[in-house]
Amino acid sequence: MKAVTAEIITIGDEILYGQIVDTNSAWMGTELTRIGVKVKQITSISDSAEHIVLALDNAKTRADIILMTGGLGPTKDDLTKHVLADYFHTSLKLHEPSLADIASLFKTRGIELTELNRQQAFLPENCTPVRNVLGTAPGMWFEQDGKVYVSMPGVPFEMKRMMTDTVLPQLKAYFKTPHIIHKVIQTVGLPESILAERLEPWEDSLPGHLKLAYLPHLGGVRLRLTGQSMNEAKLEQELQQEVDKLPGIIGKYIFAYGEVPLEEAIGQQLKERGLTIASAESCTGGFVAHKLTSIAGSSAYFIGGIIAYHNEVKMQELSIKPETLQQHGAVSEATVRAMAENVRLKFDTDIGVATSGIAGPDGGTPGKPVGTIWIAYSDKYKTVAKLLNFNKNRLLNIEYSTMAVLNLLRQSLEPTVEE
Amino acid sequence: MKAVTAEIITIGDEILYGQIVDTNSAWMGTELTRIGVKVKQITSISDSAEHIVLALDNAKTRADIILMTGGLGPTKDDLTKHVLADYFHTSLKLHEPSLADIASLFKTRGIELTELNRQQAFLPENCTPVRNVLGTAPGMWFEQDGKVYVSMPGVPFEMKRMMTDTVLPQLKAYFKTPHIIHKVIQTVGLPESILAERLEPWEDSLPGHLKLAYLPHLGGVRLRLTGQSMNEAKLEQELQQEVDKLPGIIGKYIFAYGEVPLEEAIGQQLKERGLTIASAESCTGGFVAHKLTSIAGSSAYFIGGIIAYHNEVKMQELSIKPETLQQHGAVSEATVRAMAENVRLKFDTDIGVATSGIAGPDGGTPGKPVGTIWIAYSDKYKTVAKLLNFNKNRLLNIEYSTMAVLNLLRQSLEPTVEE
Repeated sequence: MKAVTAEIITIGDEILYGQIVDTNSAWMGTELTRIGVKVKQITSISDSAEHIVLALDNAKTRADIILMTGGLGPTKDDLTKHVLADYFHTSLKLHEPSLADIASLFKTRGIELTELNRQQAFLPENCTPVRNVLGTAPGMWFEQDGKVYVSMPGVPFEMKRMMTDTVLPQLKAYFKTPHIIHKVIQTVGLPESILAERLEPWEDSLPGHLKLAYLPHLGGVRLRLTGQSMNEAKLEQELQQEVDKLPGIIGKYIFAYGEVPLEEAIGQQLKERGLTIASAESCTGGFVAHKLTSIAGSSAYFIGGIIAYHNEVKMQELSIKPETLQQHGAVSEATVRAMAENVRLKFDTDIGVATSGIAGPDGGTPGKPVGTIWIAYSDKYKTVAKLLNFNKNRLLNIEYSTMAVLNLLRQSLEPTVEE
Repeated sequence: MKAVTAEIITIGDEILYGQIVDTNSAWMGTELTRIGVKVKQITSISDSAEHIVLALDNAKTRADIILMTGGLGPTKDDLTKHVLADYFHTSLKLHEPSLADIASLFKTRGIELTELNRQQAFLPENCTPVRNVLGTAPGMWFEQDGKVYVSMPGVPFEMKRMMTDTVLPQLKAYFKTPHIIHKVIQTVGLPESILAERLEPWEDSLPGHLKLAYLPHLGGVRLRLTGQSMNEAKLEQELQQEVDKLPGIIGKYIFAYGEVPLEEAIGQQLKERGLTIASAESCTGGFVAHKLTSIAGSSAYFIGGIIAYHNEVKMQELSIKPETLQQHGAVSEATVRAMAENVRLKFDTDIGVATSGIAGPDGGTPGKPVGTIWIAYSDKYKTVAKLLNFNKNRLLNIEYSTMAVLNLLRQSLEPTVEE
């Protein structure tokens, strides 16, 4: 049984020159996988006619679906539409409904419609326009020799809306696809190689049509077990059987099943237990609070936070004693413990978390080099502090220590969980 | 004069399935461009032997340099090393210096060296190993028919360190490259199409070897003027001449020249003027403070912040009057103005910024739908508030309103700057 395959082609020098990061393809890959389409390749090319044609010629040799993003802007460096008109032997024609959409969009924005934007309503005659309710560049759907070609703008929220509303449902209807199911198991606390050793016997015993992948990321390793079959129910059952064996092997390192970030898993726990939390941050400068509040419904447990960047703020807002700062310094166990305890008392929450460290690139000393970061957790039963040492760049030090705070929070919420 | 070209190949199902976003390629693209290498294509493929071989065969038809990332982990699903050994007709041999690096890495981590990791020191005999001081997978440098192939791990900070220390300098030495120079002009406040209309006469007058690109992104449009030549000094001069014409056309919308994010441009201004700032955030939950403190040296101007998620915190920490919250609600001009003013007074800073809104997905009302966000700026001369309406998802609402706060901050710092 041959799987329906897709290739994603992103068009624009800005991706090749590294001026922007291509986040669209990852999102499209996830959505295509979800409807049982296997992404064979993602190709990023420049905004040049011959390269676009070459990429299309190559893509159709290996893919049934070719999704293009980018090169549909109103400006001179956007060629895609004209190249596609030639590629499919047709010419551009004004598409009135698209013009109406563009006009109304400008009306709501209170900006005057420009000739450049008016030209965006001209589309290849033999394509089916894909409506773009969030932007000025309509999409284009072409069919040729049983293959589907779709061109969409590169603006992420426009592309996503068009995919969700139109392209994905139409692809599902057009192709009869096998079922690809992923089971994601989220672990934290074990490095990939040790995790792999513990799982080897289990992995070796997997049936041939199930495939395991290790996906290490900030502060953890994601396990992805993948299977493909026409019989969805049977596949689902096979995968679940294998997943159910994991708690017996690496139970205490599993924090969630499925695409649940650590901050969401923690949020669910806090909600279920009716616990509230407050944060006191120095070196992480608000990123811990951001992670906790990035989850929908977080106002149920996150009450507030103090970003105590300067020592005056640590003393004034978090009642850190001047002696503590003088004797131990701002980056110390004594200071971070007091920060976690006092923010909890200040906001009358069940839990307080705190960070104080040297994110860098400046501020390091021989005794406390850049990347020296203290984190702490406090509830009414205990206060736990932990020293971290990362020698990464400023942003990574902030991100890694934030993940470490979340993991410390998780471990403290589940006393059975090991380091 | 033919430019030296490169193709980036990322290996691993996790990118195709959208389980991770490929940020490596953008970084590599930036660095390669900087040394005058033109990236022709970025290709993401699965961890399968035949696809890796096919990608290599295609890449060498269009590129002089082929950089691969991924597929070097210790686990079963990592094939790259074995495929490369076959591709270059050689076999794997223990590389003692790499084994020593791996062993010392595990020693510092206090973890025992596993057989899986020991195997990572086995490398193709005819490659030049590329040292990896941050991880267990060494890189591999191959030369064939005047082309260079380099394989590196997919872990971003390992790859970046190897590129910076070894690969980029060696590529620069190996190839005599023309000079590609980019001039980036950062604008905010004008949509792409209107910007393009204002710039059209200037753009049309550009010499043929200079190319302009519009790069819209969160809260602004980046302009990139690119030129290529063997004569670096002359090219630099030509580009600068054109850039110098821009202030006369779109001056008030330019906030920086070069790859400077808005928060850094603001930071430089605050530093130069010796101004300090504090933040009071509700819906953005710490993201404004994170952006401001993500810049090295921000402790010179960022003093501290309050994350006032709950109304009790708004009253207790920011002295928001209960009547204000009752009459106008937390999401209101009155509340956000008071937040900005009071956080400034509380922390005795020159400037206070504040946000209060409904990030969603819940909490919306007919009168105040999700995406209704008030932001404010306050200094001792004035307090300015602004109402934003985004109907995006929670994270985008947080990011867009944070960018809006930064832009309001910038406009308020430069009274001459228009909306």
